[in-house]
Amino acid sequence: MSDLPRQIEIHEEGPREGFQFEKKAYPLADRVRLVEMLAETGLPQIQVASFVSKTKVPQMADSEDWFAAIRRKPGVLYTGLWLNESGFARAQAATGVDMKANLYFYTSDQFSQHNNGRNATEMLEGQRRWISMYRDAGLPIHSAYLMTAFGCNLEGEITPEKTLSWVHRIMAMCREEGVTLPCLYLADTVGWAVPGRLTRLVGMVREAYPELRIGLHLHDTRGSGLANVYAAMTMGIDLFDASVAGLGGCPFAGHSSASAGNVCTEDIVFMAEEMGIRTGIDLDALIEAAGEAERIIGHPLAGRIMHAGSLNKFRRASAGAAPSARTA
Amino acid sequence: MSDLPRQIEIHEEGPREGFQFEKKAYPLADRVRLVEMLAETGLPQIQVASFVSKTKVPQMADSEDWFAAIRRKPGVLYTGLWLNESGFARAQAATGVDMKANLYFYTSDQFSQHNNGRNATEMLEGQRRWISMYRDAGLPIHSAYLMTAFGCNLEGEITPEKTLSWVHRIMAMCREEGVTLPCLYLADTVGWAVPGRLTRLVGMVREAYPELRIGLHLHDTRGSGLANVYAAMTMGIDLFDASVAGLGGCPFAGHSSASAGNVCTEDIVFMAEEMGIRTGIDLDALIEAAGEAERIIGHPLAGRIMHAGSLNKFRRASAGAAPSARTA
Repeated sequence: MSDLPRQIEIHEEGPREGFQFEKKAYPLADRVRLVEMLAETGLPQIQVASFVSKTKVPQMADSEDWFAAIRRKPGVLYTGLWLNESGFARAQAATGVDMKANLYFYTSDQFSQHNNGRNATEMLEGQRRWISMYRDAGLPIHSAYLMTAFGCNLEGEITPEKTLSWVHRIMAMCREEGVTLPCLYLADTVGWAVPGRLTRLVGMVREAYPELRIGLHLHDTRGSGLANVYAAMTMGIDLFDASVAGLGGCPFAGHSSASAGNVCTEDIVFMAEEMGIRTGIDLDALIEAAGEAERIIGHPLAGRIMHAGSLNKFRRASAGAAPSARTA
Repeated sequence: MSDLPRQIEIHEEGPREGFQFEKKAYPLADRVRLVEMLAETGLPQIQVASFVSKTKVPQMADSEDWFAAIRRKPGVLYTGLWLNESGFARAQAATGVDMKANLYFYTSDQFSQHNNGRNATEMLEGQRRWISMYRDAGLPIHSAYLMTAFGCNLEGEITPEKTLSWVHRIMAMCREEGVTLPCLYLADTVGWAVPGRLTRLVGMVREAYPELRIGLHLHDTRGSGLANVYAAMTMGIDLFDASVAGLGGCPFAGHSSASAGNVCTEDIVFMAEEMGIRTGIDLDALIEAAGEAERIIGHPLAGRIMHAGSLNKFRRASAGAAPSARTA
């Protein structure tokens, strides 16, 4: 327990995950309002939208307008996602995108092939060009994401040893390109992680690269999401991607179940703060934003505390009621 | 990590929790079928129904019929719940109820008053009569439940020190009555627990009573349910109440949010088995029962893996596909 961090950093992924996951397009004003509400909660970083194929992902066709319409709050980073050079160029040209130079890698040939038309080794080699692209743009490399780090729906089990071998390849490639990677995200892309496997992998990566900051990008596909977050925190991990209200999936009947959302931001904030781990986030304001997300999306979302409420009202009520109860 | 149990025991609470929570009555045949499906999964114990006021809880008016209609599977315990002497007499008189002598205690005067019309001390004293009642019936005391062990919506924070003081009072009372209590459940009745507080309390109780088996009755009100289960397992806790599909609450809009269900049985089974901790339960059969529970109840339930599916199909598919993929 002594390795618990004193504070954690949570990056919000809900807006992009959520509106991209749904089949319909939502009014720009609603999407802008949600991002602005999130920015008021104390979240340090919000991933707003992606710059991807407008024909394949029409929900994200107006990402430029979305970014441009946001009333920016100083100190908050508003980030975007791109998966190829032309997406990067669009993000660069857009107004209001805080450019963070991330790299993407896969442990699974089949998953990489399915998502990118290239196997995992080809993806890795392709990231050399991204490093040049970022260098030309004057952007220092921020993070690398290693997808399917815990398992893959196409290849099945991904052992910690296999994932670690990919970490070695990523680190070697970065070194060859003259890049010191500050941060590596282990991504549980399709929800295979449980605490045992997670702590084992984190331990192996940390032992091999003690200077590397490890972040986690977890999906709560099978219910172990917050257990994974807690297990990671016991190892001192202090960096998590998360989605307000669990946006980015609908684990209930009638939706494709394979894509459950990220772990739920406000559920993490509750757990962390109750354990004395600071998040810098106003839980009640975040719960309000989660409710707004659910109203906009128009169907129940998977977040828990957003439906139950925080403990603040009970603590306030009991603090007020206690003296009279004692004298009664 | 070395304190992880090699196996855990999960008691199913879903049928009683679920059908009691809903406002409508469900056909007896549906309720019987669900219990029979659950019994086929390997669950060692299923709480079927309660023997409570037929006017206050009309959904449980036919508990006798429900028990009597179940085709019993050898080796499975089918238990009931009673909250007063007349409920106990009904359960005794019914057919097919496996009688387990449990005692109930509260840390919170206000919660106890609200639920029972008596404060926590009066409840504790009243349990002396239950001990005689069980003795007269030839039933050894099985467990004590300590409700609101982590917090209370009426009194707010319940400190571990306060909860431990109630454990002392319970143990002293049992000793006075000549009872050696085999097992104490710490119940997070209204969803206040997080891993830090839980491990602290478990540690304190265990230090004071090393011979006492500790079980956990957790509600997943605010998303930390499985994190709490994992945290407890790291301390060797191996006894959990749980509800299939998360029955016993509906954390989504339109339902009273205060009563979220127990932690979800199949989500625990998944997490435990993936960590090499045996449960004796067939996960895929349990997921099927969870789906049946959702169909019967008629609205989305909170379980996660029931909507995503287990990893078995992906493991089988990849095991089958791998050779041809390798030669391709």
